[in-house]
Amino acid sequence: MNKRVITLGEIMMRLSTPGHERFVSSNNYNIVYGGAEANVAISLANWGVSTAHVTAFPKSDIGKAALQYLRFAGLDTQYVFFEEGRMGLYFVENGAMQRSSKIIYDRFDSVFANFDGSFIDWKRVFEGADWFHWTGITPAISASAARICEAAVNAASELGVKISGDINYRRNLWQYGKQPLDIMPDLIAKTNLIIAGLTDFENCMDIHETDYTTACKKAQEKCPSIQYISTTYRKSISASHNGLSGVIWNGKELLESKSYDMTHIVDRVGGGDAYMAGLIYGLLEGADQEALEFAVAASVLKHSIPGDANFVSVDEVAQLVKGENVGKLLR
Amino acid sequence: MNKRVITLGEIMMRLSTPGHERFVSSNNYNIVYGGAEANVAISLANWGVSTAHVTAFPKSDIGKAALQYLRFAGLDTQYVFFEEGRMGLYFVENGAMQRSSKIIYDRFDSVFANFDGSFIDWKRVFEGADWFHWTGITPAISASAARICEAAVNAASELGVKISGDINYRRNLWQYGKQPLDIMPDLIAKTNLIIAGLTDFENCMDIHETDYTTACKKAQEKCPSIQYISTTYRKSISASHNGLSGVIWNGKELLESKSYDMTHIVDRVGGGDAYMAGLIYGLLEGADQEALEFAVAASVLKHSIPGDANFVSVDEVAQLVKGENVGKLLR
Amino acid sequence: MNKRVITLGEIMMRLSTPGHERFVSSNNYNIVYGGAEANVAISLANWGVSTAHVTAFPKSDIGKAALQYLRFAGLDTQYVFFEEGRMGLYFVENGAMQRSSKIIYDRFDSVFANFDGSFIDWKRVFEGADWFHWTGITPAISASAARICEAAVNAASELGVKISGDINYRRNLWQYGKQPLDIMPDLIAKTNLIIAGLTDFENCMDIHETDYTTACKKAQEKCPSIQYISTTYRKSISASHNGLSGVIWNGKELLESKSYDMTHIVDRVGGGDAYMAGLIYGLLEGADQEALEFAVAASVLKHSIPGDANFVSVDEVAQLVKGENVGKLLR
Amino acid sequence: MNKRVITLGEIMMRLSTPGHERFVSSNNYNIVYGGAEANVAISLANWGVSTAHVTAFPKSDIGKAALQYLRFAGLDTQYVFFEEGRMGLYFVENGAMQRSSKIIYDRFDSVFANFDGSFIDWKRVFEGADWFHWTGITPAISASAARICEAAVNAASELGVKISGDINYRRNLWQYGKQPLDIMPDLIAKTNLIIAGLTDFENCMDIHETDYTTACKKAQEKCPSIQYISTTYRKSISASHNGLSGVIWNGKELLESKSYDMTHIVDRVGGGDAYMAGLIYGLLEGADQEALEFAVAASVLKHSIPGDANFVSVDEVAQLVKGENVGKLLR
Amino acid sequence: MNKRVITLGEIMMRLSTPGHERFVSSNNYNIVYGGAEANVAISLANWGVSTAHVTAFPKSDIGKAALQYLRFAGLDTQYVFFEEGRMGLYFVENGAMQRSSKIIYDRFDSVFANFDGSFIDWKRVFEGADWFHWTGITPAISASAARICEAAVNAASELGVKISGDINYRRNLWQYGKQPLDIMPDLIAKTNLIIAGLTDFENCMDIHETDYTTACKKAQEKCPSIQYISTTYRKSISASHNGLSGVIWNGKELLESKSYDMTHIVDRVGGGDAYMAGLIYGLLEGADQEALEFAVAASVLKHSIPGDANFVSVDEVAQLVKGENVGKLLR
Amino acid sequence: MNKRVITLGEIMMRLSTPGHERFVSSNNYNIVYGGAEANVAISLANWGVSTAHVTAFPKSDIGKAALQYLRFAGLDTQYVFFEEGRMGLYFVENGAMQRSSKIIYDRFDSVFANFDGSFIDWKRVFEGADWFHWTGITPAISASAARICEAAVNAASELGVKISGDINYRRNLWQYGKQPLDIMPDLIAKTNLIIAGLTDFENCMDIHETDYTTACKKAQEKCPSIQYISTTYRKSISASHNGLSGVIWNGKELLESKSYDMTHIVDRVGGGDAYMAGLIYGLLEGADQEALEFAVAASVLKHSIPGDANFVSVDEVAQLVKGENVGKLLR
Ligand SMILES: [Ca+2]
Ligand SMILES: [Ca+2]
Ligand SMILES: [Ca+2]
Ligand SMILES: [Ca+2]
Ligand SMILES: [Ca+2]
Ligand SMILES: [Ca+2]
Ligand SMILES: [Ca+2]
Ligand SMILES: [Ca+2]
Ligand SMILES: [Ca+2]
Ligand SMILES: [Ca+2]
Ligand SMILES: [Ca+2]
Ligand SMILES: [Ca+2]
Ligand code: NI
Ligand code: NI
Ligand code: NI
Ligand code: NI
Ligand code: NI
Ligand code: NI
Ligand code: NI
Ligand code: NI
Ligand code: NI
Ligand code: NI
Ligand code: NI
Ligand code: NI
Ligand code: NI
Ligand code: NI
Ligand code: NI
Ligand code: NI
Ligand code: NI
Ligand code: NI
Repeated sequence: MNKRVITLGEIMMRLSTPGHERFVSSNNYNIVYGGAEANVAISLANWGVSTAHVTAFPKSDIGKAALQYLRFAGLDTQYVFFEEGRMGLYFVENGAMQRSSKIIYDRFDSVFANFDGSFIDWKRVFEGADWFHWTGITPAISASAARICEAAVNAASELGVKISGDINYRRNLWQYGKQPLDIMPDLIAKTNLIIAGLTDFENCMDIHETDYTTACKKAQEKCPSIQYISTTYRKSISASHNGLSGVIWNGKELLESKSYDMTHIVDRVGGGDAYMAGLIYGLLEGADQEALEFAVAASVLKHSIPGDANFVSVDEVAQLVKGENVGKLLR
Repeated sequence: MNKRVITLGEIMMRLSTPGHERFVSSNNYNIVYGGAEANVAISLANWGVSTAHVTAFPKSDIGKAALQYLRFAGLDTQYVFFEEGRMGLYFVENGAMQRSSKIIYDRFDSVFANFDGSFIDWKRVFEGADWFHWTGITPAISASAARICEAAVNAASELGVKISGDINYRRNLWQYGKQPLDIMPDLIAKTNLIIAGLTDFENCMDIHETDYTTACKKAQEKCPSIQYISTTYRKSISASHNGLSGVIWNGKELLESKSYDMTHIVDRVGGGDAYMAGLIYGLLEGADQEALEFAVAASVLKHSIPGDANFVSVDEVAQLVKGENVGKLLR
Repeated sequence: MNKRVITLGEIMMRLSTPGHERFVSSNNYNIVYGGAEANVAISLANWGVSTAHVTAFPKSDIGKAALQYLRFAGLDTQYVFFEEGRMGLYFVENGAMQRSSKIIYDRFDSVFANFDGSFIDWKRVFEGADWFHWTGITPAISASAARICEAAVNAASELGVKISGDINYRRNLWQYGKQPLDIMPDLIAKTNLIIAGLTDFENCMDIHETDYTTACKKAQEKCPSIQYISTTYRKSISASHNGLSGVIWNGKELLESKSYDMTHIVDRVGGGDAYMAGLIYGLLEGADQEALEFAVAASVLKHSIPGDANFVSVDEVAQLVKGENVGKLLR
Repeated sequence: MNKRVITLGEIMMRLSTPGHERFVSSNNYNIVYGGAEANVAISLANWGVSTAHVTAFPKSDIGKAALQYLRFAGLDTQYVFFEEGRMGLYFVENGAMQRSSKIIYDRFDSVFANFDGSFIDWKRVFEGADWFHWTGITPAISASAARICEAAVNAASELGVKISGDINYRRNLWQYGKQPLDIMPDLIAKTNLIIAGLTDFENCMDIHETDYTTACKKAQEKCPSIQYISTTYRKSISASHNGLSGVIWNGKELLESKSYDMTHIVDRVGGGDAYMAGLIYGLLEGADQEALEFAVAASVLKHSIPGDANFVSVDEVAQLVKGENVGKLLR
Repeated sequence: MNKRVITLGEIMMRLSTPGHERFVSSNNYNIVYGGAEANVAISLANWGVSTAHVTAFPKSDIGKAALQYLRFAGLDTQYVFFEEGRMGLYFVENGAMQRSSKIIYDRFDSVFANFDGSFIDWKRVFEGADWFHWTGITPAISASAARICEAAVNAASELGVKISGDINYRRNLWQYGKQPLDIMPDLIAKTNLIIAGLTDFENCMDIHETDYTTACKKAQEKCPSIQYISTTYRKSISASHNGLSGVIWNGKELLESKSYDMTHIVDRVGGGDAYMAGLIYGLLEGADQEALEFAVAASVLKHSIPGDANFVSVDEVAQLVKGENVGKLLR
Repeated sequence: MNKRVITLGEIMMRLSTPGHERFVSSNNYNIVYGGAEANVAISLANWGVSTAHVTAFPKSDIGKAALQYLRFAGLDTQYVFFEEGRMGLYFVENGAMQRSSKIIYDRFDSVFANFDGSFIDWKRVFEGADWFHWTGITPAISASAARICEAAVNAASELGVKISGDINYRRNLWQYGKQPLDIMPDLIAKTNLIIAGLTDFENCMDIHETDYTTACKKAQEKCPSIQYISTTYRKSISASHNGLSGVIWNGKELLESKSYDMTHIVDRVGGGDAYMAGLIYGLLEGADQEALEFAVAASVLKHSIPGDANFVSVDEVAQLVKGENVGKLLR
């Protein structure tokens, strides 16, 4: 695929207890780096899309390690900025059966939260870009992060770059004085594809509906630039066993995907980001229903892989969509 | 919770093969320390109960390591006695599917088996105590261990401390000349809550029944101090998949718990001890049915955690009882 | 069991990513050694059969490590020959759920492929032997390997040693100029027990049938020395969940085994070889149906064990056949 | 030893790369918990001294894990307070030869830095205490930490508890507006034993001398309550090879210790804290020169142990002081 | 540094036994990727030089993993070509004391050895390049590899790009029919900086001298384009303890570096490549003696780092040259 | 070498803390199997000597794992007897610098200690044997073990098999009622090569001398069948740094070996056994001085290898004797 996607957002060090160890008994942590938007970027890079991620890292060996991880994962890192400060962290404990998986964030006051990116030349960043992706996490982090997000969305919008946003409302963030409704509506108004559930509609668009299709129609009325609205449905039987499907509203109808039974979940963190990346890839590539099926299948595969990043190929996703080779031993 | 519980029993070093490795191919073992009674104590300590465990450890760095493990797990270790001798061991091989999990014991002639605890001032030990817990493993180990158990039960009984006993009949023990019926009836007669299945009734109380309620009634007739009798029902579909529920006889009726489907078992060792701890906690706290549900849910969560110890919080157990958050990703 | 079995074939170093890590993110590999025929030999050795494996290893510490692994697994290694050259390798990535497991071979130009075994004194090798086992992989590797296989089959046949062959057609092999039909029919004609599916019949015996019993009858007509024909049926629900059963044609009827649900697969590589070994063991020991049940149960247990080798005892297999102790904690 | 020591200070999670891996290539970190004052407390607890540490931890599983580590290490944790916030961290990369070991701190805005400990009842804390230990790190962290340190020093001083302070001037701290000379002199004036090098004298006592004895005399003139002043001399040949000795000024003379050649350093972090603990233990126990020798030997042993904590026994230190058993295999 | 360097050569998977384990007892291998020329490239990339490496990888997940490693290490990978075939391997066993470290190669018939790179547009590759680096390993691998090397050297020479070559004569290679003297002289004749010891002079330049300066003069006479000739001197006291220094002939005099005592070697593989990279960096940057000192110090630091790649910064090397901070704990 | 050696003795499971971890902080142990006599056997098997070890193992998967380890190491295991009981254990903590390595034994009441080997047909065991090796550990374990040792020594003596004994006096053993002087003199009297230091002479031969040569002469007077007496001299600078040399009395003179400086000790356990094996190998092969040099060099190499077993080749030892390749990187 000959496309270019730009993503923006914080990347944190992820510290995971090994196996099914609990936090209190774990003597070592596995380390990767992740963040909602970078996870999307890594999926896309892995699928052959030219992808650059805009972020800020600490000027230290920790920041250098994070940078090397992004390069390992195939990202164009020319827009990674190095500043004094700390890297945000999150600790992950992998559940099993009736015991839920847990994430503990330690991301406040990070180098990204304090990053003044006003010097970024967004025209240069978007040169040759086909798509820009942001999430509702960025404007929730700090005033400066919100400003960077606005600058990026505005520039992309003006330059005719397609824009996607994962609304991703998180009550624990938004601690710097602003409320979601102060900021999110303007960002969403310029966005073409959003991922949003009913809670997101309420908190970030002030749309209070219980029917998803109705909510989508209202959202599109409010924000005519929105072309697609999507969400996943997750049936949480246990930490080890979930069902997964997705829907997409394309302005005319609510398309539904196949539903998957995930009975031996390895790691569900990043599952939503894998879905998001699948949608972007699918819509850059082809038709709505195909994009939706690609997104759900990509997300299902993510649940079989340790870490945030979805290291699967386009072929692997496509085969799952077609139901080929599932459970075979590939030689 | 502002309660104090005393437990008594042997603690062994547990050596587990990693992952699903078999004994014959394993080049390293993971180390924790466990024992039926200490596992109960650790659960309770974890739930905020002041808990002291009475035992004997070798005077060596191995004994010191075991002591530090108990402190790590939150126990009051002032009644851990250090003597010359060896620490008992058990080797654990984690099964999967149709391959059963295995335990190999190497516990004979241990420092605890040879421990002459006649000097223990049980009145001092039980100062401020609300509950004493013993199991049928202790009197099965050696004559001296049986004497210590008797001394403890007698003292607790005289001091009005509530007593629980997990009958836990094990044919491989009882090798020092005495038979269960020589010793167990006297201990049980002073106990207020017992965990016993039909086999336990037969071997340790000489009650031969096939109906659990009838057996409970007979037991209570024989031993009027018994207030509660409980057991778990385990449906062993495979090493990876079990069903679990529990019942408790409260002198009037046989209460039944919800039944859980455990489809991705991580480690079932200590599951019974987690149940026992749950009953003690629940009965110290409140009503019979609530105690039973707490016990079963605690045991279910144990099956998701590597090692003998059930490192879960009261909140986590309570949420499972209510069916909240099961399979969610907690942030 | 007081029997002796000879096996012949290439053994490779197996490099497996740990846990469910993908190849691209794995920083270390677990090492064992395996090969279709050696896997059979290891099962049999583990069950008390005297078993020697004929193969060639590199004259290096890598070859020495492989030799020590075979000895560890109980094989008589007097017919392991050391030559200059490289050891073949295969990389294994363990799938989960909808993500398939993968094997990448790096076996061309190996010391075994280049091994000129014409000096082997097969009469001496078969002294005291009851059974010889080969697979369709060996004649597929190289002209010299095919010649060695022919020499072995001819000698065993002349000496009245029972012969089994796992047809195991693999399109990626057969790269040295010969086609399966050039070589396999002669080998099969002297073999008494074959494992073959419909694809194997087509490619290696030129029998094109869709009904398994019909194919078996045709095969026996073509090759009257064949006494048994068998295959497994695998229902591939996901990489973590398979169904498994087997059938055997004994010249009169197609016997069917019990069917097993494998819901938590640990490692499926070597599952077919465990089945093959089970058949050989069972037929050396007793009746057809019992042999078939032993083979399927052995294969099921293999799926619970990491690595190629099926380190289970006769008792464990026999108990699974009887449905005893499944899912119990064995103490 | 029948003594009680109180320590105060921040404890951080320590994340160490395994072996000699660099930060940029490390995929997992080993986890322990440490801090200058807690390291002292752990040494003392290990030597049989009753030791309580006063600190603040986050109300989370991370804080719980840290608490369990302190209990594992033998500390009385009744004065560990739980508050909302983050735990400070430090990352450790173990050098070798000419490549230095590195520490990266991420400790700003931690739960301890923000901890308002004004409610602490220091009289209760010091009940039965013989000694209080603080370091110059605490007043350097934040205004509230400085206030807590002052309150503790004042209370100890009034209650006649002996006080030690490791001056430990660190330029990277002191970022909250105060300078060392604003705060340290008052703390030092009430302290009886200080560890200070010439840089510490300059920055924290405004004493500018090049001769250590002269500096000690001036310090004692300024602060007559100081009874002992000590420092270590480290000869840094490489990250793997250091020389170590110590001196102590006892008001009359500068005593010098034996000098040790440490040629295979395993982990030097915490070496100074091991020395400090050795001095406290030695001075609680006996004569000046013996205390000094005990301190240096304890510190040498620390360099052979991974992690911050010096898990050695009094006997092991005493034997090294006597030069016994060095390099023997102890059975 | 604003320079661009191109390197060419095979990259292999490196499989190292953990710690000081021997091949025969090792159950897992650590995986990185290395090769003499890529190791040089990685050093330079790490020091801020824009560096592209030209090579061929297998079209498989193994090739993809290798590619991701190169990106992780900072290389421009646009000239990595993917072909059918196998990746070369080398196994590394880390010695200690009197036991030598060992490398076992398995590199024949690799995708690089069989790579027909005649389609490479070297003019495009060298666009903007300041330097090209090759080694004597490439022409020793296969006729096609030799042709690629010649094409690259010729193009670089014509385009005025500076050329360095590490002569690196290895008797075990050169198995495809050509002898070093058939090929190396032409390559060397166009090269400006060579690393060569007396054995290299003999085998690759037909210069038989025992004095290094005399050999350098003769080499320069034969090949006037050579501006610099360098080599390291290694004093091999044990696998754990080496001395290291270097010399460089600049056409006028033989400059000598400081000598370093490496007393705790972690991993010496890649030490020569670190030196080579240091020379290139130093000569791109400045004066001869400074370049030599930089090269030796870089190589010394490499010996403290596991793996082939020298993940150190320019600052770290420069500080070692100045003797600063050696053996300090850097905070 | 076309020789056969028989060894007799207990084999225990060895549990080692990883790296330089102390017992109290270690969460996992590495597992191998060792014993003074089996360590000798493994060395010899590794050098091409046909070697059978006589011992008893528990009838369990633990005993099976130990058996597979012996086979892995190349021993003929036909004289390994399986009995009910426990396997002896020893825990190893690897020291560093001034911190000594430690071994904690847990070997009492083991299956070997309780083994009644009176049924062993020693004539059959010694068929074709050239050498028998025992140590003073066996008669120290139990009365039955002493009887087995006597039976073996008597049989070997009668059959003209050469006998070696490592006197190896250990005060902590000998707890079953007999004293060394009750038993050892008779065993030694039939032995041809002993390893003994001055303490061994005192405790096991009642020879009280301070000069080694004088002691040797007296021993030979007492026991004329002794042909060789040998011992090592170890200079214990630290746990990481030892000197090593050896001497052998051949009835005429005391030969001295080269002395080695071991500056980076990886694992010293089994060093004496490696020396013993070297002497046996050397004396089976050739002259006295050569045997001595081989033994010391073998022992030195052992110190570079984790575990008890000395996995080095004859070539590696021979090269060290010649001082070849020391500290080189072997490719
Ligand atoms: Ca732990
Ligand atoms: Ca997500
Ligand atoms: Ca193994
Ligand atoms: Ca239990
Ligand atoms: Ca990785
Ligand atoms: Ca197979
Ligand atoms: Ca890595
Ligand atoms: Ca320190
Ligand atoms: Ca091993
Ligand atoms: Ca090199
Ligand atoms: Ca630990
Ligand atoms: Ca020994
Ligand atoms: Ni996300
Ligand atoms: Ni399920
Ligand atoms: Ni799992
Ligand atoms: Ni199931
Ligand atoms: Ni699982
Ligand atoms: Ni599992
Ligand atoms: Ni399933
Ligand atoms: Ni799994
Ligand atoms: Ni197979
Ligand atoms: Ni400190
Ligand atoms: Ni040194
Ligand atoms: Ni080291
Ligand atoms: Ni190199
Ligand atoms: Ni040295
Ligand atoms: Ni080392
Ligand atoms: Ni030394
Ligand atoms: Ni070292
Ligand atoms: Ni070391």
